[in-house]
Amino acid sequence: MTVTTLLYRDPTAPVEARVGDLLARMTLREKAGQLNQRMYGWDAYRRTPTGGFELTEALLAETERFAGLGALYGLLRADAWSGVDHTTGSGAEDGAELAHLVQRHVVERSRLGIPALFVEEVPHGHMALDGTVLPVNLAVGATWDPGLYERAAAHAAAELRARGGHVALVSALDIARDPRWGRTEECFGEDPYLAARLTEALVRGMQGEQEPGGLFAPDKAPVVLKHFAGQGATVGGRNSAESELGPRELHEIHLPAARAGVRAGAAAVMAAYNEVDGMPCSGNRALLTGLLRERWGFEGLVMADGLAVDRLARITGDTVSAGALALRAGVDLSLWDEGFTRLEEAVARRLVSEEDLDRAVARVLRLKFRLGLFEQPYGPCPFPDPAAGRELSTALARAAVTLLHDDQGVLPLTAASSVAVLGPHADTVAHQLGDYTAPQRPGTGTSVLDALRRTGMDIRHTRGCALTGADLSGIPAAITEAAAADLAVLVLGGSSARTPDTEFDANGAARTAVSEMTCGEGADLAGLRLGAAQHTLLDAVIATGTPTVVVLVQGRPHAVPEAAERAAALLTAWYPGPWGGEAIADVLLGRAEPVGRLPVSVPRSAGHLPVHYNHKDTEYGGYVDDSAEPLFGFGHGLSYTRFAYGPPRLSGRTVEVDITNTGQRRGRTVAQLYLRRLVTPVWPRTLELRGFRAVDLEPGECRTVAFVLGPEQLAQVGTDLEMAVLPGTVEIRVAESARRALTAVPVGLRVDQSFTAPDETPL
Amino acid sequence: MTVTTLLYRDPTAPVEARVGDLLARMTLREKAGQLNQRMYGWDAYRRTPTGGFELTEALLAETERFAGLGALYGLLRADAWSGVDHTTGSGAEDGAELAHLVQRHVVERSRLGIPALFVEEVPHGHMALDGTVLPVNLAVGATWDPGLYERAAAHAAAELRARGGHVALVSALDIARDPRWGRTEECFGEDPYLAARLTEALVRGMQGEQEPGGLFAPDKAPVVLKHFAGQGATVGGRNSAESELGPRELHEIHLPAARAGVRAGAAAVMAAYNEVDGMPCSGNRALLTGLLRERWGFEGLVMADGLAVDRLARITGDTVSAGALALRAGVDLSLWDEGFTRLEEAVARRLVSEEDLDRAVARVLRLKFRLGLFEQPYGPCPFPDPAAGRELSTALARAAVTLLHDDQGVLPLTAASSVAVLGPHADTVAHQLGDYTAPQRPGTGTSVLDALRRTGMDIRHTRGCALTGADLSGIPAAITEAAAADLAVLVLGGSSARTPDTEFDANGAARTAVSEMTCGEGADLAGLRLGAAQHTLLDAVIATGTPTVVVLVQGRPHAVPEAAERAAALLTAWYPGPWGGEAIADVLLGRAEPVGRLPVSVPRSAGHLPVHYNHKDTEYGGYVDDSAEPLFGFGHGLSYTRFAYGPPRLSGRTVEVDITNTGQRRGRTVAQLYLRRLVTPVWPRTLELRGFRAVDLEPGECRTVAFVLGPEQLAQVGTDLEMAVLPGTVEIRVAESARRALTAVPVGLRVDQSFTAPDETPL
Repeated sequence: MTVTTLLYRDPTAPVEARVGDLLARMTLREKAGQLNQRMYGWDAYRRTPTGGFELTEALLAETERFAGLGALYGLLRADAWSGVDHTTGSGAEDGAELAHLVQRHVVERSRLGIPALFVEEVPHGHMALDGTVLPVNLAVGATWDPGLYERAAAHAAAELRARGGHVALVSALDIARDPRWGRTEECFGEDPYLAARLTEALVRGMQGEQEPGGLFAPDKAPVVLKHFAGQGATVGGRNSAESELGPRELHEIHLPAARAGVRAGAAAVMAAYNEVDGMPCSGNRALLTGLLRERWGFEGLVMADGLAVDRLARITGDTVSAGALALRAGVDLSLWDEGFTRLEEAVARRLVSEEDLDRAVARVLRLKFRLGLFEQPYGPCPFPDPAAGRELSTALARAAVTLLHDDQGVLPLTAASSVAVLGPHADTVAHQLGDYTAPQRPGTGTSVLDALRRTGMDIRHTRGCALTGADLSGIPAAITEAAAADLAVLVLGGSSARTPDTEFDANGAARTAVSEMTCGEGADLAGLRLGAAQHTLLDAVIATGTPTVVVLVQGRPHAVPEAAERAAALLTAWYPGPWGGEAIADVLLGRAEPVGRLPVSVPRSAGHLPVHYNHKDTEYGGYVDDSAEPLFGFGHGLSYTRFAYGPPRLSGRTVEVDITNTGQRRGRTVAQLYLRRLVTPVWPRTLELRGFRAVDLEPGECRTVAFVLGPEQLAQVGTDLEMAVLPGTVEIRVAESARRALTAVPVGLRVDQSFTAPDETPL
Repeated sequence: MTVTTLLYRDPTAPVEARVGDLLARMTLREKAGQLNQRMYGWDAYRRTPTGGFELTEALLAETERFAGLGALYGLLRADAWSGVDHTTGSGAEDGAELAHLVQRHVVERSRLGIPALFVEEVPHGHMALDGTVLPVNLAVGATWDPGLYERAAAHAAAELRARGGHVALVSALDIARDPRWGRTEECFGEDPYLAARLTEALVRGMQGEQEPGGLFAPDKAPVVLKHFAGQGATVGGRNSAESELGPRELHEIHLPAARAGVRAGAAAVMAAYNEVDGMPCSGNRALLTGLLRERWGFEGLVMADGLAVDRLARITGDTVSAGALALRAGVDLSLWDEGFTRLEEAVARRLVSEEDLDRAVARVLRLKFRLGLFEQPYGPCPFPDPAAGRELSTALARAAVTLLHDDQGVLPLTAASSVAVLGPHADTVAHQLGDYTAPQRPGTGTSVLDALRRTGMDIRHTRGCALTGADLSGIPAAITEAAAADLAVLVLGGSSARTPDTEFDANGAARTAVSEMTCGEGADLAGLRLGAAQHTLLDAVIATGTPTVVVLVQGRPHAVPEAAERAAALLTAWYPGPWGGEAIADVLLGRAEPVGRLPVSVPRSAGHLPVHYNHKDTEYGGYVDDSAEPLFGFGHGLSYTRFAYGPPRLSGRTVEVDITNTGQRRGRTVAQLYLRRLVTPVWPRTLELRGFRAVDLEPGECRTVAFVLGPEQLAQVGTDLEMAVLPGTVEIRVAESARRALTAVPVGLRVDQSFTAPDETPL
């Protein structure tokens, strides 16, 4: 009798063979266990008095209950909700040790030695202690720079794996259609094309190049793309409320990023809370199976959002049937629900078949094999250079800073000898970070004040007011400082900083915003206004007559039309991350050019929502009391120089445009290619972004930018909801923003089937 | 050879035979002519110096061009847009004469003697000089009284026919989902069930009882139900903009009124401007043919909205192909378009077949035969008693007045000896009327001030401010009057009054709101606020300390939370029509009980839209800066007495509730039956109205109200979008409002197939 390795343990065997072999050996209970990640990861361990970690009874009970553990959520998470901080959680130096400890326990308690997946939040960097915080997605959207984002995403994945984490949860698919939504900061913007390109960059950066279904490199992490689908369209910007959107809107606006992510090889998607056509995504078979798997050919994992499966009990009557509904719909892995813990009962009640379970279990196991967990359950890669992370984060922040107007030419701040740096965002790093962020070590990051002080300029500072509330007591001091300065830099905005007094729902969404939190998950804002005192401060500082540069640090476009009308200059930096102050100062001082472009339209008020550049092409004259046009439109962003765009030339399938830097400084323009459909089988949008290219030009320099028109550019959602290149006529416009494109000289194109080559399938 | 009557001229022949016979005799040009109503009716005639009418060259050219005339729009219309007034238009005494003159010309110029259809606006009464103006639909919705509305609709139809008009254009199908929309006033409210019952009442009232496809009585008018479909859901409340709504939302919310109207026998529907799933309704074959004709079996006429066919040229390239697209989609009769005037060319270009034309022509001819126009082309019925019209209009207005709060018990106004009647709506009839209204003869109608003065009370009055603008110069006088009175009645609101300086689009929608127009077609309001000075006036009057009753006269729910918070009492009367002031006074004085109930939710601000009681049942904690709940919810309305509702009892298919008047006055409660679905195949709304019944009770009296649960109550839109009674469990709640229903004691019901009897098909 020879000693044989079990097939599933043979690293040379094909993944599918290993999955099949292992599955065949598993009990029903073990299978059900693989589909659960019920625990909060931070409940799995505690610090010992000597500074190490020990496992909790909760973890022991959990592995006992499931005869192993499918996945563990948030082992490394640290934030106000989890309550984990530097005294209780694991940092860069001991995260891997913690993960090792837990994993060893899981493997040892599993009869078949199946390791757990450690699933972590990585919305803008790994949200763990010592994780490098990146600017939020909305800021990433403002960079229009997928290449830079890809490198940053790769860094975040390497940090995650170095800490023993495996799978990255990343918002990418939500499209920002209503800025009232507190999670607008997690969106790449309002445009499906821009979001699709950034989603691809995310997947490439985090997962790296691997064969379809192949192994992940040790510093790469499978991505769970959040959220599938349509969550950006919930009514009223209300978090996880219903969406009324129709299939066309879904396909045209909300699905392209998901489609791109799936094509790029995303390992997993997360089913969203919201419903689509009468069924929450987690119970929506048409969406998760009909569209995602059968039509798109997705072979990865579908995870439900936290407690989303149990919510289905509202219409099924109990959590067992809720779990069955979700599994049948296409959910493989649950998050915190009871429903999936009772799948054995669902099989017994014949609500699901064991084959249904097997399909889902196979997808979980497949991911574990692809991660090499059976070979290297504990094997982290080395922690990547933190300096590189900081550099990438700062570069993204710098690229995101967007100059909205500079009517008086006060920027860059070369002439001012005395500057008053004012406002509740002037001297804080905590509020620059965005939601989900872990506690930062003291001294991490740079505020605007820090960065400007370092220049040696004559800087005066007072805060003026808090982010929220109507306390005006600090305003007189701000007036004094502003009046005494040559120029005021007024840094206003919102905050997604969770503090220990924030109350949370069971899924970690903020329940009430005490403290200064007005944005982030669960913090939706009906009025889109800043805190009341901030508006008073703005009025008061401008009234001093000192030219005032307003900088907005925010997770959504707030409605501050008075700043657009009366400030000397206006910038938005979104949430730029820890080193955002440095990035903002770089742009203010002209050490960096302002290259950010709006990924969302900026509304005048909450009353005229929605504002998107890519609305349908209907005639609308405006409201009696307001314009229907945004204050600043999609794609807008000024430079310190100017550019002239020549008329587009069409040659075969290539559009060329000559762009000249007509100003006195080096600068970057982001050439944006828009389609305007003329003859078409469905009612068109006014414009559709279908290409963009950043161009750096010296003063007087002219370059020709070329775009090739392929299916990615020309395809549309037909009457059958299939994406295809349909016969018709279109205009191509290349311009610096959507609004400019409306009046740009077009070049016409008659589209026919020849635009779909046999080897190209659109989008 | 015997003299034979041509078959189509034989009144004893079946309509279908007559249609077929006539159609067979027509040329292509004559057929195309029947599908057009290109002219504005007021361009067809002019006054002669002697006070009679003569036909214009425009009409002669039009009948020449079409070898007859299919239909003529607005022959009797008079308003600021048409420019017709009492000096130029026809009134009660000579309308029939004008219609006769035009019709005789049309019949004589038509080779086959085909009379024209005279199509008129009857949104709330016949919008012609001397037509009885009824309260707008939103006020009708507030009455919850289909019986009363049916009688008023019958009166309007009789007036129309007496004036020589034939076909009534009536808004009924638009559901008020966004109060920013200026046409909210034309909606019966936010609820599909309430709108469906009122639409049935409209059709019964105007068309009377006739056999399916049978003849209309001489005082009855075929109704064109406007607008099909989904126009209430255009984004941002923007008039005729796109709608993003999905098929489920369409079927659950926007189609039930249309379905009910079609079942009630409506002769026609008007295709709406907005698009549904990527195609404007006028070009939407899935909607006009697939759903309306093939699934619902509608055999009537489909008219396009004004210029809606030509708008399709945006995607077809020219108006000929636009006309062809509309005809193929299912439009029979165009309004003002060029596209349909060139249908002969469309046939020549093979864009449509002559069979396509024939189908549409047959529908136009069928309606003419059903109206008896070939027998009585000129024969009007006698003009109905204007006093009866006034009585019906006032009764509707009275029933619409809704008491929203009365915290201090100041109403009815029995105790006040001195009353200050203030506000820009206190002494005007013109602004009580709503959009589309014809110029009124001097002395028509009653303002609130008029009606209160007639009581002999000590009345002080000053206007305080205008409806729009920020002129505060009148406010000191208002403060003086308020301070000197025991009680102030402050009448505020909006206006849809078109004035000669209003600018119009080609389809009659108001383009810019100069003057005081802030509501009506084309007058959308982003902020939902009253004119700025009105808010100042409100603050100032309340600050006097004199108890203040605020009455809102409006075509939409404005956001005036300060009135809800600080006024002693608050009422809304919507646009109550000419005698609205009397109706309001009746309620204020207790001569009539307040019986109105909200047909729409009243928002706190534009920022937290949408607010509907029948949103999906998702958990939502509210915005950081506002509640997501309306200020006042659907179905709400107080009485001067109080009612106690007992728990519901279910016996077989009957739900019974005991209701007791526990107060000191006679009063009326509107018992509202709501469904709350528990186990259900699609995600449910929080509540669904499925029955209502007004109950008059003496003090101390108790009555049992019974509702029978049938398919109309229990059916839902299934996963296949078909309306059906599906197995599940539901709760039945009976309460005074939707908000009360949330906490009312329910009775549970297990629904199975037995609830669909063979002879009952749901909705």
